[in-house]
Amino acid sequence: MSVAVITYHGRMARWEPDARGRLEQAALELFAERGFDDTTVADIADKAGLTERTFFRHFADKREVLFSGSDALRELLAQSVAAAPASMSPMQVVGAALEAVSQVLHERREIVPRRQSVISAHPELRERELIKLASWADVLTDSLRRRGVKEPSATLAAEAGIAAFKIAFARWAVDPKRRDLARLIRESLEELDAVTAGR
Amino acid sequence: MSVAVITYHGRMARWEPDARGRLEQAALELFAERGFDDTTVADIADKAGLTERTFFRHFADKREVLFSGSDALRELLAQSVAAAPASMSPMQVVGAALEAVSQVLHERREIVPRRQSVISAHPELRERELIKLASWADVLTDSLRRRGVKEPSATLAAEAGIAAFKIAFARWAVDPKRRDLARLIRESLEELDAVTAGR
Repeated sequence: MSVAVITYHGRMARWEPDARGRLEQAALELFAERGFDDTTVADIADKAGLTERTFFRHFADKREVLFSGSDALRELLAQSVAAAPASMSPMQVVGAALEAVSQVLHERREIVPRRQSVISAHPELRERELIKLASWADVLTDSLRRRGVKEPSATLAAEAGIAAFKIAFARWAVDPKRRDLARLIRESLEELDAVTAGR
Repeated sequence: MSVAVITYHGRMARWEPDARGRLEQAALELFAERGFDDTTVADIADKAGLTERTFFRHFADKREVLFSGSDALRELLAQSVAAAPASMSPMQVVGAALEAVSQVLHERREIVPRRQSVISAHPELRERELIKLASWADVLTDSLRRRGVKEPSATLAAEAGIAAFKIAFARWAVDPKRRDLARLIRESLEELDAVTAGR
């Protein structure tokens, strides 16, 4: 089923039920089969039974299929830090924000391992993933400062949190249906505390 | 003065005294004046009084002028970790390796602030800097594992060390003649321990 609707740009557009999800599924399958470089937007649209125009309504390019979720998660980190009780320490605030992110990722556990294997296989995508995580650390730092956390505590808590997240996420992404990301993040933060105590 | 010598490739080449240093100086001045994007390799060679061919004997491209030192520092990190006494904790080993790096950077304190301001002004260069630091974390992790440090301690000590280094380096690069990078790194590691203890 597809129906003509007016988009918020005021243009006529065909509304395709879950076009975004279908494009994402198709892209991940093609990236896994042919590799990221040998998959075109036309291939993805075709496999999803949609047009390239529909693809570009949802994603700027094929790389965005893998990274478009990051903006929403960055926003969630900022909101979680802002909403955390005043009594929490900077590290507790960061832990709570990462726990909120882990809930969203839990809902996406079906696609996470496939996404990760595409990224792992491609140096440029691995770099993009690093830059994404660095932008999460930046938003955590800024949000902590806005709560009145002083430097260097704000940057250190943010960087420590992202380091713990990276490690927890790598463990989780191997088998995201059986492991609990929030718990792995808490364990990583405990281990980080133990490691840094051994200066 | 320039003299003809046989390079290790067996070709005739003109040996220019400190060609590399002159190219680096010229590049940093031009990047600061015109911006990184509007500076060409020809401009850099010209300002240094050398040929483009000489430039390309030293650097693959103009970006490499800013990042070519990273490989030697990565190697230094690996060697320092391997050479650290067996009695040291993973975090102490990482601290010692970063201290070795800070000595090399101290010798380059004349150019560090200019290099940093070029990088800060350019998003793509800032990304390259992040990727460079991530590669340092990877080499620290691998070197710790080779000493028998188990996971997740190896990755966490490496990531914590690089987080502390980033913060210390940002403080130091503002005024590298008056501050001591090694000391700033030790302080950052202490602060990181204090922050992570507040989980």
